[in-house]
Amino acid sequence: MIPVEIVVTGNELLQGDVLDTNTNWVCRRITALGGCVERAVIVRDHMDAIVREIRSCLERSARLIITIGGMGPTQDDITVAAVAVAVQRSLNLHPEALEMVRRQYERFAHEGAVDDPTITPAREKMALLPAGAVPLDNPVGAAPGVLLETDSSAIVCLPGVPAELKGIFEGALQPALQQLFGESAFLEKLAIVNCKDESILAPVLKAVAETHPHVYLKSRAQRFGSDAKFRVTLSTTGPSRETAEQRIAAAIEEFRRALDAIGVSIEAIEQVE
Amino acid sequence: MIPVEIVVTGNELLQGDVLDTNTNWVCRRITALGGCVERAVIVRDHMDAIVREIRSCLERSARLIITIGGMGPTQDDITVAAVAVAVQRSLNLHPEALEMVRRQYERFAHEGAVDDPTITPAREKMALLPAGAVPLDNPVGAAPGVLLETDSSAIVCLPGVPAELKGIFEGALQPALQQLFGESAFLEKLAIVNCKDESILAPVLKAVAETHPHVYLKSRAQRFGSDAKFRVTLSTTGPSRETAEQRIAAAIEEFRRALDAIGVSIEAIEQVE
Repeated sequence: MIPVEIVVTGNELLQGDVLDTNTNWVCRRITALGGCVERAVIVRDHMDAIVREIRSCLERSARLIITIGGMGPTQDDITVAAVAVAVQRSLNLHPEALEMVRRQYERFAHEGAVDDPTITPAREKMALLPAGAVPLDNPVGAAPGVLLETDSSAIVCLPGVPAELKGIFEGALQPALQQLFGESAFLEKLAIVNCKDESILAPVLKAVAETHPHVYLKSRAQRFGSDAKFRVTLSTTGPSRETAEQRIAAAIEEFRRALDAIGVSIEAIEQVE
Repeated sequence: MIPVEIVVTGNELLQGDVLDTNTNWVCRRITALGGCVERAVIVRDHMDAIVREIRSCLERSARLIITIGGMGPTQDDITVAAVAVAVQRSLNLHPEALEMVRRQYERFAHEGAVDDPTITPAREKMALLPAGAVPLDNPVGAAPGVLLETDSSAIVCLPGVPAELKGIFEGALQPALQQLFGESAFLEKLAIVNCKDESILAPVLKAVAETHPHVYLKSRAQRFGSDAKFRVTLSTTGPSRETAEQRIAAAIEEFRRALDAIGVSIEAIEQVE
């Protein structure tokens, strides 16, 4: 299972001004691809803090490191520069990236979104990439995404504007993701259990989890008494769809038996998409 | 300015099943108290991962470390045990905490939310606290919050169920927060600027930021052409409300002058609550 880590930058997130929805979106996508997001961290727009986080991802040899935010033209957008420092590469003007930035500003000018498409230093900054990195076409905004392969990890830098992040992830990043995740598949099922109280389920979940180490069981915490039923998700990631199906089926089988033994039944099993 | 770090646990967050809104809520509250959330990390429900994150917060001497989630009765709820390991304290049954858990289950039974209020091992687990910690009354759910003071840091453990987290934060945690943050005040203002293009603002923001190091300026990234105006927030945290007011006023004054010089005007200044 391919370990993925996410590093998000933005003081506005840590001030509570803006709710980070990008991390959830990326986590969902990575999970669907069969990857495992081990960790996601939000840091402030400080060079040392961002460098420290990226280095610690590299030390844990995360196979894929995704940074989100800090790619714009303003002085506090320093993520790509921080990646260069973290991997000790020089930051150079990338001709292809510059062409992408130029093309977008010409489009914005044509659409009246900006008055003047001239590439100012602030705009040129978005075409500065670490040595060896490739730009990823941004179909929405000006800043190209960045893909940098190191010996152990792939580092991908995405903008914090959701439409730009999604545009790059669903577009220019796809070939790299396919190569990385290949066949592996994630599968999740939801069991609706006739039981009011999580603490009664606890020993059963523990027992099933121990005999099915590849399957993750989670009972969804909720307000007591708000519901007479309990939702338990069973999820796994397998090298293939079949393996994932077999693992979940076996775990559900044992879960059902163990619940019967304490007089609790599974009311329904649903596929989670 | 008091540095705060947040450690959130929950595989369901990193799988993308659930959007984490707790971190944003806590960040907003800490900011309003005059604290500075330096970092927020989401990790999976693994003992070593949680211990590693808490230790790294302690190494950076975060004055306040807030953990969110992993406090329930199930086997994957291990946050409080991880805190005990991280600070090398024993985990003991806390009589006052046990009394809180008992009281809640009696209430739940009375309300018909559970059938039997008996304190099972799974329920008792929620009253296991690190040596020296105090329980924080949970007005909503069964698991008390936890407050543990070390030589350098205060560690606070809150449940992941939003209503429980908020209930403890707004209630039992308040005295500790008052003691920690005292007089300091956060202030933020929003400037609406008649300018289409962030890259034109970039050099102005840079100049103002450099001469007003205590004030954080942020232009809100948005889709190009979606709006002919730009939103710039100016924020600071001062030892007192007056100092914060003075800092922001001075920065706005210079910001206005610098924009005038490039023919851009500030259309409105709004207080951000």
